[in-house]
Amino acid sequence: MRMRIDINADLGEGFGPYRIADDEALMPLITSANVACGYHAGDPVIMDRTIRLAKEHGVDLGAHVSFPDRMGFGRRVMQIDPHELEKHVLYQLGALYGLAKPAGHHIGHVNPHGALGNLASADKSVAETLVRAVHAFDPKIRFLVLPGSQLEIAAQKVGMSCWRLFLADRAYTREGQLAPRAVPGAVIKDEAAVIARLARLLKEGVVETIDGGILRMEVNSVLIHSDTPGAVALASGIRRQLTDDGVSITALSRQA
Amino acid sequence: MRMRIDINADLGEGFGPYRIADDEALMPLITSANVACGYHAGDPVIMDRTIRLAKEHGVDLGAHVSFPDRMGFGRRVMQIDPHELEKHVLYQLGALYGLAKPAGHHIGHVNPHGALGNLASADKSVAETLVRAVHAFDPKIRFLVLPGSQLEIAAQKVGMSCWRLFLADRAYTREGQLAPRAVPGAVIKDEAAVIARLARLLKEGVVETIDGGILRMEVNSVLIHSDTPGAVALASGIRRQLTDDGVSITALSRQA
Amino acid sequence: MRMRIDINADLGEGFGPYRIADDEALMPLITSANVACGYHAGDPVIMDRTIRLAKEHGVDLGAHVSFPDRMGFGRRVMQIDPHELEKHVLYQLGALYGLAKPAGHHIGHVNPHGALGNLASADKSVAETLVRAVHAFDPKIRFLVLPGSQLEIAAQKVGMSCWRLFLADRAYTREGQLAPRAVPGAVIKDEAAVIARLARLLKEGVVETIDGGILRMEVNSVLIHSDTPGAVALASGIRRQLTDDGVSITALSRQA
Amino acid sequence: MRMRIDINADLGEGFGPYRIADDEALMPLITSANVACGYHAGDPVIMDRTIRLAKEHGVDLGAHVSFPDRMGFGRRVMQIDPHELEKHVLYQLGALYGLAKPAGHHIGHVNPHGALGNLASADKSVAETLVRAVHAFDPKIRFLVLPGSQLEIAAQKVGMSCWRLFLADRAYTREGQLAPRAVPGAVIKDEAAVIARLARLLKEGVVETIDGGILRMEVNSVLIHSDTPGAVALASGIRRQLTDDGVSITALSRQA
Repeated sequence: MRMRIDINADLGEGFGPYRIADDEALMPLITSANVACGYHAGDPVIMDRTIRLAKEHGVDLGAHVSFPDRMGFGRRVMQIDPHELEKHVLYQLGALYGLAKPAGHHIGHVNPHGALGNLASADKSVAETLVRAVHAFDPKIRFLVLPGSQLEIAAQKVGMSCWRLFLADRAYTREGQLAPRAVPGAVIKDEAAVIARLARLLKEGVVETIDGGILRMEVNSVLIHSDTPGAVALASGIRRQLTDDGVSITALSRQA
Repeated sequence: MRMRIDINADLGEGFGPYRIADDEALMPLITSANVACGYHAGDPVIMDRTIRLAKEHGVDLGAHVSFPDRMGFGRRVMQIDPHELEKHVLYQLGALYGLAKPAGHHIGHVNPHGALGNLASADKSVAETLVRAVHAFDPKIRFLVLPGSQLEIAAQKVGMSCWRLFLADRAYTREGQLAPRAVPGAVIKDEAAVIARLARLLKEGVVETIDGGILRMEVNSVLIHSDTPGAVALASGIRRQLTDDGVSITALSRQA
Repeated sequence: MRMRIDINADLGEGFGPYRIADDEALMPLITSANVACGYHAGDPVIMDRTIRLAKEHGVDLGAHVSFPDRMGFGRRVMQIDPHELEKHVLYQLGALYGLAKPAGHHIGHVNPHGALGNLASADKSVAETLVRAVHAFDPKIRFLVLPGSQLEIAAQKVGMSCWRLFLADRAYTREGQLAPRAVPGAVIKDEAAVIARLARLLKEGVVETIDGGILRMEVNSVLIHSDTPGAVALASGIRRQLTDDGVSITALSRQA
Repeated sequence: MRMRIDINADLGEGFGPYRIADDEALMPLITSANVACGYHAGDPVIMDRTIRLAKEHGVDLGAHVSFPDRMGFGRRVMQIDPHELEKHVLYQLGALYGLAKPAGHHIGHVNPHGALGNLASADKSVAETLVRAVHAFDPKIRFLVLPGSQLEIAAQKVGMSCWRLFLADRAYTREGQLAPRAVPGAVIKDEAAVIARLARLLKEGVVETIDGGILRMEVNSVLIHSDTPGAVALASGIRRQLTDDGVSITALSRQA
């Protein structure tokens, strides 16, 4: 069977007059989008525009939920008790749903942003809170996760499905963890190297670890960091390589 | 047939550590609640608590949508273009839905708050924008309106149903408009007088106008201003009088 | 020499339509106020009103600075880097100054609120950041501190003065720390007991610790928790007792 | 005497992770900056950075005060009563002062932003409220105004001084008003034309009106719209032309 991979990006991360990524240029190049829900970024007008753009391009819609921290762009840890966090997640899911429904789109996956995403990967309690919220809203929604993360474990525990995400521009340890950004070589900046890593993963099912080892991974989606300068070029380069390699670029919802 | 009336109040209007009304005391006395959606008031924890309290008491749930103005409690006019306003309404409806769904409750009606409510009654464009948003979300939702308002007209134009609201503590003109608050006698503060007006409306179908005339009205619901000091006593008094008069206190959803 | 003590409370903690304490009733009973600066609570109108009320009653004005977290009322820890925190403190000090200057009042002290207050007491880095900010704004401002806290140490290190605060309704350990709220007996709810503790401290210079020991303390001010139901009665009771005991109730600025 | 003109721009209009203008490139090219105070834009870190950058380049500091509306970027009219507006202006002035003082800079002028700016030009009550606030904070601050505006009139009435601003890329009517943006030709987009208009004004003291007439103006400053794509090039072009014409590019504070 032909190999398949989804191309994913965080979009709709502007606010009022502000923009982060070039959403219009990226949307035709990706197959799934995580859309900010008004907490770390996004407002109703931007959310609506991003959802409709996704719908138009056949791009899957995910909720990019966050801590309530616009000034910090959801990047700093907040001490929020699980009950409150659960309600914040539901508020965001609902708000996105409120804009998606009239646009004829629907929320297929959830991917937590920034500090909430990091905690959901590493902290069992946060992961379970997030899963409890999403499950209560719609148990058919899938999580877009780092393989082996607490979020994946928590989702599976309640019978929810996950999609697995590959960060082509980040080095992994032998244990399958992301090497911390502070470690030299943790972030891979050369576009060709990033594409080569992805190509190898799709052909051979492995990625070279930061210490020269070999890590076996199975993934559904590759993440493009939408807010880096070369994002559009990188997405184009990835599409070209994948097409040359005979890989099918397939949205998550069509991989099921 | 026995006369029926719904008792309605705005609840969940706190924020963070703040509270406005005594929601716990009022909920058992009313049959429908308009719940703040995080714009003029309300946060996810308070919204969840209010929705669950309503569910528990068999109280109908409505979305109390507003302009995005927490400091001004949604009471001041904001110049928002129709497209943006439409998206703000959808965001709020969705957010409330996100919390209502896991609680097993559903949004049966919409009642706009404060400055948005005043504009929706008086301004055709605002009324039509509000109707367009709610219709796109769920055309079976009903509006809770002042009889004869632009909101009622706009809703009917697209085939949506309305519930009609009576403000027992406000004087009406012969034309069926609320007398402006600045006019002497526009706000009726005596509890007995308020109850008597309601009783007469239900028995005779009329209310005395501010200039001593007679206005014929048909209403589905009477509003208790939840943030006035005697709200709980007034709600109790109204229930007692209605029961004595043989009126059935019936939630909107059971009047259909 | 006659003993002197300041009576201190956190005021102006409302927002928009919301109120927490009965500021009007408390102001005549206290001699120094910590005024919220728009971060955990307070808005420009409330800040102005509180400052003018303080001025009118000869009450000292302090800045009650906080993390930027209105929904959490500044009570939850936020991960903010020292550089950013320093600027947040300066923003708040300046904003309070902007309203105090036209009212003819001036900022005499700073007292950090909630989670920021707890961290400033316990965490050297946060304490030093806070001190750096206030020193840069006006080195003559004094900190209102818990005796022995990191904030006191950090202030003294740069030559700034402190006022020492006594929490009459909280139990202390032999080391002079507040017993954590979770510990039984940590919060003293009986009004007479609270007043007796204060009276003993002023007469004998000691307070009984949670394990029955004796702790020697020297303080300048006693805190009234403005948001507890009996705050006004407690403040009155304290004033009566102090007057009976011949203690002079003296604002911080007049103790210098 | 040699002609002098200040070059002015709105800077520091980012928020959290967001940026609008290229502040670093513009600062060396201008002589006065209006800095956002956290209402329509700006946060404490950005305000501090912008103030220090201005100080470093000898650029005058002004407060770019606004309505409290970050999502709308201060561009939409809000119904705020004069008392509240006065306190909002003082809050912003103070906040900017709190960051300027430690940086060794000071607020020399005030220029209202967006919808507040438009109202302050056209509406006597708003103009007088703004003047009342700034006068109460520091009567030596000057307003940066459109010649003939209500703000200029209100400032002069209480004995405060103004600097007069020229918008080189906007057409004027014979009465000295800005032609509304909707009018064809109201916005001049050609860089050479913009520079030629400024050059003529400085040489001959006149500007051609939208209907081909001649308007006599005396101005202290020319505004560069910092958020338009060619802002840096335009500022460079203006500097070059002015230097060639023997005009002295002089900050407001050195024109006094």
